[in-house]
Amino acid sequence: MKPWRGIQGSAEARPDEEEALEVARVAIVGAGSVAFSVSLIRDLCVEKDLWGSTVVLMDIDKERLGLVHGLATRYARETKADLRFEATADRKEALEGSDFVVCSVKVGGYEGMEKERKIAERYGYQGGIGDRVSDYYGGIGAYYQLKFFLDLARDMEDACPDAWLIETANPVFEGTNLVARETKTKVVGVCHGHLGYKEIVKTLGLEEKDVDALVAGFNHCVWLLRFLHRGEDAYPLIDRWIREKAEKYWRSGKFQKPRFPWEGEQLSPSAVDMYRMYGVFPIGDTVRSASPWWHHTDLRAKKKWFGPMGGFDSKIGWSRYLELREKGLKKRMRLFSDPTASLTKEYPPVMSGEQHVPIIDAIANDKERTLELNVPNMGSISGIPDGVVVEVPAVANGKGIRGMPVGELPKRLMLGVMVPRMLRMERILQAFLDGDRKGLLLEILEDHRSTSFERAKAMLEEILAQPWNEEASKHYKWAR
Amino acid sequence: MKPWRGIQGSAEARPDEEEALEVARVAIVGAGSVAFSVSLIRDLCVEKDLWGSTVVLMDIDKERLGLVHGLATRYARETKADLRFEATADRKEALEGSDFVVCSVKVGGYEGMEKERKIAERYGYQGGIGDRVSDYYGGIGAYYQLKFFLDLARDMEDACPDAWLIETANPVFEGTNLVARETKTKVVGVCHGHLGYKEIVKTLGLEEKDVDALVAGFNHCVWLLRFLHRGEDAYPLIDRWIREKAEKYWRSGKFQKPRFPWEGEQLSPSAVDMYRMYGVFPIGDTVRSASPWWHHTDLRAKKKWFGPMGGFDSKIGWSRYLELREKGLKKRMRLFSDPTASLTKEYPPVMSGEQHVPIIDAIANDKERTLELNVPNMGSISGIPDGVVVEVPAVANGKGIRGMPVGELPKRLMLGVMVPRMLRMERILQAFLDGDRKGLLLEILEDHRSTSFERAKAMLEEILAQPWNEEASKHYKWAR
Repeated sequence: MKPWRGIQGSAEARPDEEEALEVARVAIVGAGSVAFSVSLIRDLCVEKDLWGSTVVLMDIDKERLGLVHGLATRYARETKADLRFEATADRKEALEGSDFVVCSVKVGGYEGMEKERKIAERYGYQGGIGDRVSDYYGGIGAYYQLKFFLDLARDMEDACPDAWLIETANPVFEGTNLVARETKTKVVGVCHGHLGYKEIVKTLGLEEKDVDALVAGFNHCVWLLRFLHRGEDAYPLIDRWIREKAEKYWRSGKFQKPRFPWEGEQLSPSAVDMYRMYGVFPIGDTVRSASPWWHHTDLRAKKKWFGPMGGFDSKIGWSRYLELREKGLKKRMRLFSDPTASLTKEYPPVMSGEQHVPIIDAIANDKERTLELNVPNMGSISGIPDGVVVEVPAVANGKGIRGMPVGELPKRLMLGVMVPRMLRMERILQAFLDGDRKGLLLEILEDHRSTSFERAKAMLEEILAQPWNEEASKHYKWAR
Repeated sequence: MKPWRGIQGSAEARPDEEEALEVARVAIVGAGSVAFSVSLIRDLCVEKDLWGSTVVLMDIDKERLGLVHGLATRYARETKADLRFEATADRKEALEGSDFVVCSVKVGGYEGMEKERKIAERYGYQGGIGDRVSDYYGGIGAYYQLKFFLDLARDMEDACPDAWLIETANPVFEGTNLVARETKTKVVGVCHGHLGYKEIVKTLGLEEKDVDALVAGFNHCVWLLRFLHRGEDAYPLIDRWIREKAEKYWRSGKFQKPRFPWEGEQLSPSAVDMYRMYGVFPIGDTVRSASPWWHHTDLRAKKKWFGPMGGFDSKIGWSRYLELREKGLKKRMRLFSDPTASLTKEYPPVMSGEQHVPIIDAIANDKERTLELNVPNMGSISGIPDGVVVEVPAVANGKGIRGMPVGELPKRLMLGVMVPRMLRMERILQAFLDGDRKGLLLEILEDHRSTSFERAKAMLEEILAQPWNEEASKHYKWAR
């Protein structure tokens, strides 16, 4: 989309004058997130219509950056993809002239988070405060993530005012709302959670191609609003599965001995219970994030509702996740450091199912695609204000992205889950934007596990007093 | 406003043809609420511009009705007020041709309520479920009250389509929203809670005439948004009182030995704490109804925040209230049954401070007055949907009633109290309108004192199984 510029240190030769038009310039901020970058690079290499693009890998971790740059170059060579890869640790340089900026940054890593979780557990918050004040999104009040998103989007206003920010780092809901409200940068949130409906399709023994599924809501709070099989309502098939097969499924090895802590979550007793409560099935992360407090009171409850690991965010599930993460990273490192290994053998050149590259392709090449995206509501979901970001089917093409109408959600779901979740987002943003410590504390007090004002306050203070929270502690002040 | 019609059994003679135009026809539904009716009748007799009106007293309790009719006639005779009083046990007859219908009905009395409170306490809900599912408004889910309001408003659509329903029975917030949305009847909600600001004025040693106070919010959730003394911000005077005098006040006899359970509530530690949390002072019933859960965990907490009786809705406070209520009723009965007693001596003919008669006077006689009323928002409070009823300063005159602009409330108050309170109203109405037992249960589970799904459900079922709840139990079904 921009005239091609010579790139120092590029693995590619300068193309002929004929080919000198760049299809798109894509910056990946936080490219050191190896697993994520591998998917993205793979998809970029597979989507031939994006060949001729430049991909700028940016991370402050130069070692990881070098590693990802190396494997990107190798993967492109193996697939013969015509892509140019740059690598930089300078964010502004990465943004300059970009058409798309993909953000997958997790500020500060996992270490502090784990310590905060242990502090919270001493105060009776099993598994940490959770996403109530977003501690698993990196720091209390999601401070460091939100701060980063805002800085990035503001930098983009100068460096690439026409670019799209493809926000894939959590919290997507709070983050996309913040950027959409506070900056001029075009932002779209991307998650793969909505694909959870495929687990239902598979478990029911249906074929994906016969199914029409409408999933919508807020990020991590999405619901199967329409579920058709060969044009007919397939909810009765779910009902029959619950009546006749659910118990057996919950006793089976798949559910009782999961390999991953999130395995089985999509059809867990919690998901079925939520379906009974709200009339539509929760999809993907929703099962964990939007389930009611009594599914999370303690490990026993978590095991009852989410299976033997107690779900992804239980003590057991989360340790297992960190373990798997470590193992996966080591495996990848071994692979990447072996120059004789075939990357395409390990990662076959097919689309990963992630939506980042399809969005870029749709917009850069004006190829209309319907995706599942986080965009300002503008009437898609009835009863949600226009400015609030929703996760809905959206049409992307050369003109941009527009959410499609979804209509009304069941009333009990709106009043019991959706509006309260929206309110939580508003409170987190209020506390962040006003630097309001009292706002944070009041949000913690809303947690059903909070037993007294004094204990909640003491926990907040202890977490904010940790060395890595110095900046957050300065930001959140006791105001009138 | 309507041609005068002959009234059977009226204590008054038929007036001359000259005077045959009725100023207004006012129906009081639930006129057997003696204390309330006395204020209303007194105000009607005092406001000379309403002389020439007909007042229809309606109640299904004929004994009480006879009593109130007798005292109304006596009070009018003592004050020489030119009013005609009718009495009927037939609601439709009372409504027919009315210009104003004042509703002060409490369906089912207090006995069932007290039993429900005891059931709830066995499940750990100190003082009953409270206004969360509106048990102190008469029955779980406020069912009987809401049902009555709706039936009354629908009857009015036929019997007196141009009349105003002046809703003063609780829950005013849920009730006025229900009627405004579901019927064509014009409704206005009336409460005296906003007058609580006068207690602050008095305690600060100021003169009411020098003070300009703006109080707004939802009924029982109103806030001192502006507080001027001789044109200058008087909040610093409250701040100084808190710093220098609050502790002494809380140790004083007025606070330590209250005559009424609500005495001292306006300037209680709870009110001051809420002011610190939300930046504006809570007024009237707000202190009890909108205070956070940790002010209400148990009797000890209630005593700490509301004084030695633990506030109006504690075990102690409520027993004391019922006792005082009983005593007051007996005293009134003695007075009314003594035909030689002077009613005006006991109830001097001055305006009571209630707003019902001023509304009637303003509309019937086109006398513009600014009152504090519950009307659909229409932009008065920023960020609240137009259709939701708010309690705001409102101008009443011959054209009707219109709320005045109030502007923005502090953000932390909006997100932490106002929107959640609105959401609770929406959930209570959803459960009521859909006959949705699950909705009721989910609402109880939102209560911070709920410790498990099973216990909350058992409590709900036990309450609904009480003989007086047979109709409610049929109404609220387990739906998908």
